[in-house]
Amino acid sequence: MRLPNFLTPRTVVSAHCDLPCGVYDPAQARIEAESIKAIQEKYQANQDPVYRTRALIIKEQRSELVKHHLWVLWTDYFKPPHFEKYPQLHQLFNEATKLAGGAGTKESVDPADGDKLLAKIDEIAKIFWETKQA
Amino acid sequence: MRLPNFLTPRTVVSAHCDLPCGVYDPAQARIEAESIKAIQEKYQANQDPVYRTRALIIKEQRSELVKHHLWVLWTDYFKPPHFEKYPQLHQLFNEATKLAGGAGTKESVDPADGDKLLAKIDEIAKIFWETKQA
Amino acid sequence: MRLPNFLTPRTVVSAHCDLPCGVYDPAQARIEAESIKAIQEKYQANQDPVYRTRALIIKEQRSELVKHHLWVLWTDYFKPPHFEKYPQLHQLFNEATKLAGGAGTKESVDPADGDKLLAKIDEIAKIFWETKQA
Amino acid sequence: MRLPNFLTPRTVVSAHCDLPCGVYDPAQARIEAESIKAIQEKYQANQDPVYRTRALIIKEQRSELVKHHLWVLWTDYFKPPHFEKYPQLHQLFNEATKLAGGAGTKESVDPADGDKLLAKIDEIAKIFWETKQA
Amino acid sequence: MRLPNFLTPRTVVSAHCDLPCGVYDPAQARIEAESIKAIQEKYQANQDPVYRTRALIIKEQRSELVKHHLWVLWTDYFKPPHFEKYPQLHQLFNEATKLAGGAGTKESVDPADGDKLLAKIDEIAKIFWETKQA
Amino acid sequence: MRLPNFLTPRTVVSAHCDLPCGVYDPAQARIEAESIKAIQEKYQANQDPVYRTRALIIKEQRSELVKHHLWVLWTDYFKPPHFEKYPQLHQLFNEATKLAGGAGTKESVDPADGDKLLAKIDEIAKIFWETKQA
Ligand code: NI
Ligand code: NI
Ligand code: NI
Ligand code: NI
Ligand code: NI
Ligand code: NI
Repeated sequence: MRLPNFLTPRTVVSAHCDLPCGVYDPAQARIEAESIKAIQEKYQANQDPVYRTRALIIKEQRSELVKHHLWVLWTDYFKPPHFEKYPQLHQLFNEATKLAGGAGTKESVDPADGDKLLAKIDEIAKIFWETKQA
Repeated sequence: MRLPNFLTPRTVVSAHCDLPCGVYDPAQARIEAESIKAIQEKYQANQDPVYRTRALIIKEQRSELVKHHLWVLWTDYFKPPHFEKYPQLHQLFNEATKLAGGAGTKESVDPADGDKLLAKIDEIAKIFWETKQA
Repeated sequence: MRLPNFLTPRTVVSAHCDLPCGVYDPAQARIEAESIKAIQEKYQANQDPVYRTRALIIKEQRSELVKHHLWVLWTDYFKPPHFEKYPQLHQLFNEATKLAGGAGTKESVDPADGDKLLAKIDEIAKIFWETKQA
Repeated sequence: MRLPNFLTPRTVVSAHCDLPCGVYDPAQARIEAESIKAIQEKYQANQDPVYRTRALIIKEQRSELVKHHLWVLWTDYFKPPHFEKYPQLHQLFNEATKLAGGAGTKESVDPADGDKLLAKIDEIAKIFWETKQA
Repeated sequence: MRLPNFLTPRTVVSAHCDLPCGVYDPAQARIEAESIKAIQEKYQANQDPVYRTRALIIKEQRSELVKHHLWVLWTDYFKPPHFEKYPQLHQLFNEATKLAGGAGTKESVDPADGDKLLAKIDEIAKIFWETKQA
Repeated sequence: MRLPNFLTPRTVVSAHCDLPCGVYDPAQARIEAESIKAIQEKYQANQDPVYRTRALIIKEQRSELVKHHLWVLWTDYFKPPHFEKYPQLHQLFNEATKLAGGAGTKESVDPADGDKLLAKIDEIAKIFWETKQA
């Protein structure tokens, strides 16, 4: 029901807990990454030192959440047959989590870096949904 | 990009961090609630004591996450004008978070209680998306 | 025994865990809110950039704790009959948690905002203790 | 304002964050210890396996919180002159935190062990309030 | 100084925080994995239901810590040139984190599975220390 | 296996969870303290305000971890006979945790304070390993 109610709710959300419950969804990582990009934009538009410090505190946390949600997908959802079919998957996840790390959105206050992270998450999401259809 | 790639990605995910970043999305609560229902179903289907104990440990955590994500929406996203327009909103959130608490999905191993929680979250999501369109 | 030993310990502390254990106490939120106000005062009195950054980091955490403790009271302690008897209770909690959020003590370094939060918590505490006597 | 409103609010709550904010209060440990004892009592009165597992999960967390709040007092509030004046203080804290650990309330489902922990916390609180008056 | 004092302290510990601080050490994952194996052994030797439930609660947490410490090494320490030199590294980390997950030590109460996890961590540690010498 | 592979792995790591699992290791505190010192050095070498704020955020967390790991050793590993044999042990732990607190490495950006903390941890580690041999 995360779709506006005027749209047919044709998607089933899915996520991650290692029971495992079987529910996985790249949206968890994407939502945090969208937050990161919004924080970067707001940081650029606001010179107040208190605001900027808070932005950095929160961006650090949100970036860590992105890494966590991606790691969960990489270890818990994806299985050996997936890695065989998508040989680039390991590197994709390694690059995506690096983009949310100390050399990525944790350090950067440039929305362009938020966009790079979002694009990489979308690459992963595309593969994720292909495997769900299979 | 959390939609299967054969669907038009017509939804923009949104979420929550009190900067505030302006990104909110009821999907965060729903994903955890779907996990809860799946755990309840798996609990019913598995008599192994280790498995069942793990299911209860994880269900406790996921229920707490549902409560947290809903509280964030109630306090951080919704503003006085929303509560005026939707006078039932306070009670709706109070009931929803109670459904994920000690008398709700934390205690219950019945998937029917997971369904009740999901239905209540969907009621909230419907209002949420109406306010986003406004 | 949290009272000075020269006072009759006539109060029984109470708190919050969703078993539920039945122990609830607004003091948990108030203690964090007093910390917030103290941090705001110390922030004003100290120009050192390291100190100020640390103050903001910690104030962010303490404000989140206030929100959490209040949410727990609102969802876990208070029941429908309470909300009927105190129709202002929903709004009171919504305002109190907003006062500890991004437009409240998370952002503000003014002790006056710490005072506003404390006053709102005291309003809630007054009702809480009335319901405990009932 | 954590006192019932028919009592003169003659106590000022106090707590702990390492800024330091200067706010400390043994009530934080005591509230969690009261929760532990309540959980032990409820555990004894309820044979339901789901309920009992949840009680153990939560008691583990609450015991950890007691340990944390006590450690904070021991390291952050008490200073060398206090330890000189109260030479038993180190041992008192070591015993109290052990009472909330693996050989204490984390393991025990006997309310008598909850009482032992509460009594030890009260010994600490008595000294704490004496030092606050000094 | 984590070596017994009769040994030459010829090793420098190292670890991980995304500043990055440059300190990394596979010991962090190994210590938690040793704890997991010890818990599995104690679980087998103790029939008490309270003890066993606690063992499962704690093993769940320790397994999560192993996964986290390994993910940090994989994303934060290892760089593209490492993955070129050790093409098996991605799969090694994926297998190691899976061994600490829902189909690994989170579920298993068999010390043999703790040993498998330890062996895999040692394979990673061997490569890690080779890269530190390079 | 945290030793370089050209060294005989003659040390067994050990750590801490209150089952208790019986695994303890001062290395957990030391690794975080080494991170703290590295952060202090990097802080001094970098004037960028974003970098410096991030350094303070992370140093706050790492210092808290040092305190936690030391508290665990003090309460969970060391027993009354140890405190009798090493009467300075209480004070040593109290001083060490204070060195990682608000008047220690949380506040200080001077690597010399990181060194003081490391030295104190090494004093504790020396005693720890003596008791393990006994
Ligand atoms: Ni799951
Ligand atoms: Ni946000
Ligand atoms: Ni409770
Ligand atoms: Ni404080
Ligand atoms: Ni680091
Ligand atoms: Ni342990």
